[in-house]
Amino acid sequence: MSDQTPMRTGGRAARRAARSSKLADHLRPVRPGLKGGQYRPLSQLDMERIHEAALTALAQIGLADAPPSGRAYLTEAGAVLGEDGRLRFPRALVEDTLARANREITLHGRDPAHDLELSGTRVHYGTAGAAVHLVDAEGRNYRECGVQDLHDAARICEQLDNIHFVQRPMVCRDIPDNLEMDLNTIYACCSGTRKHVGVSFTEPGFVKHGLALLHMIAGGEDKWRERPFVSNSNCFVVPPMRFATEACQVMEEVIKGGMPVLLLSAGMAGATAPSTIAGAITQAVAECLAGLVYVNAVKPGHPAVVGTWPFGLDLRSGAMTGGSGEQALLTAGCAQMHKFYDLPGGAAAGIADSKLPDMQAGWEQMCSNVMAGLSGLNMVYEAAGMHASLLGFCHESLILGDDLIGQALRCVRGIEVNDETLALDQMRAVCMGGPGHYLGTEQTLGRMQVDHVYPALGDRTSPKEWQERGKPDLIERARARKEEILGQPSTARLPEEVDRAIRERFNIHLPG
Amino acid sequence: MSDQTPMRTGGRAARRAARSSKLADHLRPVRPGLKGGQYRPLSQLDMERIHEAALTALAQIGLADAPPSGRAYLTEAGAVLGEDGRLRFPRALVEDTLARANREITLHGRDPAHDLELSGTRVHYGTAGAAVHLVDAEGRNYRECGVQDLHDAARICEQLDNIHFVQRPMVCRDIPDNLEMDLNTIYACCSGTRKHVGVSFTEPGFVKHGLALLHMIAGGEDKWRERPFVSNSNCFVVPPMRFATEACQVMEEVIKGGMPVLLLSAGMAGATAPSTIAGAITQAVAECLAGLVYVNAVKPGHPAVVGTWPFGLDLRSGAMTGGSGEQALLTAGCAQMHKFYDLPGGAAAGIADSKLPDMQAGWEQMCSNVMAGLSGLNMVYEAAGMHASLLGFCHESLILGDDLIGQALRCVRGIEVNDETLALDQMRAVCMGGPGHYLGTEQTLGRMQVDHVYPALGDRTSPKEWQERGKPDLIERARARKEEILGQPSTARLPEEVDRAIRERFNIHLPG
Repeated sequence: MSDQTPMRTGGRAARRAARSSKLADHLRPVRPGLKGGQYRPLSQLDMERIHEAALTALAQIGLADAPPSGRAYLTEAGAVLGEDGRLRFPRALVEDTLARANREITLHGRDPAHDLELSGTRVHYGTAGAAVHLVDAEGRNYRECGVQDLHDAARICEQLDNIHFVQRPMVCRDIPDNLEMDLNTIYACCSGTRKHVGVSFTEPGFVKHGLALLHMIAGGEDKWRERPFVSNSNCFVVPPMRFATEACQVMEEVIKGGMPVLLLSAGMAGATAPSTIAGAITQAVAECLAGLVYVNAVKPGHPAVVGTWPFGLDLRSGAMTGGSGEQALLTAGCAQMHKFYDLPGGAAAGIADSKLPDMQAGWEQMCSNVMAGLSGLNMVYEAAGMHASLLGFCHESLILGDDLIGQALRCVRGIEVNDETLALDQMRAVCMGGPGHYLGTEQTLGRMQVDHVYPALGDRTSPKEWQERGKPDLIERARARKEEILGQPSTARLPEEVDRAIRERFNIHLPG
Repeated sequence: MSDQTPMRTGGRAARRAARSSKLADHLRPVRPGLKGGQYRPLSQLDMERIHEAALTALAQIGLADAPPSGRAYLTEAGAVLGEDGRLRFPRALVEDTLARANREITLHGRDPAHDLELSGTRVHYGTAGAAVHLVDAEGRNYRECGVQDLHDAARICEQLDNIHFVQRPMVCRDIPDNLEMDLNTIYACCSGTRKHVGVSFTEPGFVKHGLALLHMIAGGEDKWRERPFVSNSNCFVVPPMRFATEACQVMEEVIKGGMPVLLLSAGMAGATAPSTIAGAITQAVAECLAGLVYVNAVKPGHPAVVGTWPFGLDLRSGAMTGGSGEQALLTAGCAQMHKFYDLPGGAAAGIADSKLPDMQAGWEQMCSNVMAGLSGLNMVYEAAGMHASLLGFCHESLILGDDLIGQALRCVRGIEVNDETLALDQMRAVCMGGPGHYLGTEQTLGRMQVDHVYPALGDRTSPKEWQERGKPDLIERARARKEEILGQPSTARLPEEVDRAIRERFNIHLPG
């Protein structure tokens, strides 16, 4: 059948019209929180061995460099401080923490419609990272990124159905003062999107200022604490097996401020973590379990995302690589370990090593994104827009990532098997005395939208139609979409009086 | 760590030198026949329901349009011819066939090093299809493809480690006579590669000529029958549930000639198959089981690949789409059904809807390719080079597909968990009194090649290095590699006297 031929006379226009009306949420083919877990790279025995090795590492090796406050929390909880300054975690302490930790957490959006329920194998995709370059896709150029780029990214994410949260993907390189940078990062993200936002405080002393800003956005501390819509990404560990002293102090502050934490262990397999996939996962699990003990020692049940984020390394050059098959396995294996513990977890996927949104970027981003989703990862961080092994962020790629992730989500949704979908009745009716095809059956027409994900920018035309349309270029179309989004006023902007009050108190770099 | 910094002084050159020497096959990080199966989109109950529905369809609906010879074979075997002309398959007949069918088949290469052992969840990737256009990637153009393009594709495949077989991916549009086209297809493929080749005869009467040619290439009928290095792709069915009369006659001929068959059922979900994924799989399974009964009725135990190839349809336009998540699920679900029956199976993956090897093509090709591999599909057909929903084939994309599939294969290989890979000893040594990193450990250096897949053309440089190198373009690099390969004499060319004899007997269109 040629794609010049409508399925039945007159049907095409009707179908296109039907499709242009927005579907009710429960009828959408994909949505946040679909359940993965159909892909299991590790056997039960594999997971038990990783768990045992992690417990042994915590009991025998432990972690160095906890801040004095952390030592106090942790020894009080049952950790043992050795003469070598390392805190060791007896098996019972870890098991006890695992038994009591918060298993079902909500990451709130500023708009409750964007709340993320983290439990089981529910999958969510979003941005993250600390890119230092903005990628100009059409100009094939890298330049330093700034606060406007970050705000634009948040505004684009706000319009993309398959980007479920917005952890800041790039650093405001145009704000040299770190406190101002942290505050403007919050402002740039929160005024661009009502989805859940992730930030990362540079110093413990900055947290109170950040909280003051968040209280203003929320409309008061009580409202903030009721629905904290920003989480803090805590690189609480310097792998291998050392606490990041200052980041731990930040963590203590944000916990007190009611902010959910992402316990991020970002070892590099072959450098700061073992080069083997199983070893890198084991170390990340050990480190994150230590972090979980820490969080629960500060405040039992505080919402924490287990962030086992081991990264791959190209051992030929010693450079980081995030686009590899090894990376996809690292992330999928970690997702399975989260489920082994039944804890909310996140890891990195969707990273391209490619500098541009080209074919390489496409295969790299899909490989780890779809495997992360199929393995049931709750939070797939860095899922869109990331290039050059995390050094560059690209707005056009982010927009294309929405199509890519929509497809990955369709795969996560999987195959429904029931009497209707098995379609034996249809088959009988169609083949025996029927039309000999399924084009007009009720099920074909009725499930056209609810079963199928249609790409927004991905091109499915025939070569003939494609030529007639002037051979549209994917990147150009993404750029046009970006301009369309950024040409509209932000739908997430803060109320005028709130914005004014914030600008009076803080040095906001974005124009009002 | 910047990728400007070698992992240790003097180590980089040594590592690069070590890497440039070819690895022994058993030390290569990926190879043909790696075992998949870690991804299971269907539960055991799902599979049993699909099996039951397929058996019911075969018993109650059956298949129309068998040729007289097929009716004879099948009724003799136990099928029942109805007054409506449909052949119905009693449950016992199908179960009996399933019990006796050939479960472990070898698809031979002309070079035994390329033999493919099809059993269990062993995964192989290769080309296939019937594209009518060659895609000029740099010129962004589609033109009709010919025999030289096909030969070039075979020669390129011969040099790509991760393309394990060469089913003809495009049609020789420059040879109007169908018999000449079929014979030249065999010649163009077999003189370009020593890997297993797939072709598809147009008419039953052509088979004897093709066999004559193959006997000459093999060095005699006995040698051919000992190691048949070409299989026939048999579209034996016109979905839904009708035998393709002439293709069935072709099938009977090739079976007699000792040629393995691919039992190909290519329904389009929503047109010639139910629109639901489960329904399309069910119908494909039913059709292929009928085909399997047929093959075994002609010659018990004859090597057959169960080719459940349901394709996706974009229901908005009625056009075929092969790059979707739905397609990846169709293929992965089929792979699981093959394993349910423990039969050698194949399906389509790696299809791009995109017209060019761009980011969309990358994500489309990776999505279904990696899911097909993880689901343990024995033969992943159409895995590289396919664009425009199978209408276009692209040499540059084929070359990039080698990197893409290498990465997918790394994912299929999975995560090894044992005492060495858990790396607890390394962790202990590194953290307690050791260097605090894993860069120089024996395991890191020793496993650098055997654990990691390095892309040939995929770019992992830093933005700085990329700029210094003049921002290399992926497609340009693929084109340069193509010219390098095609600039060398074919390593698969036939012995001169054989070639001369073939050219005396047949009208070979390729220049000698």
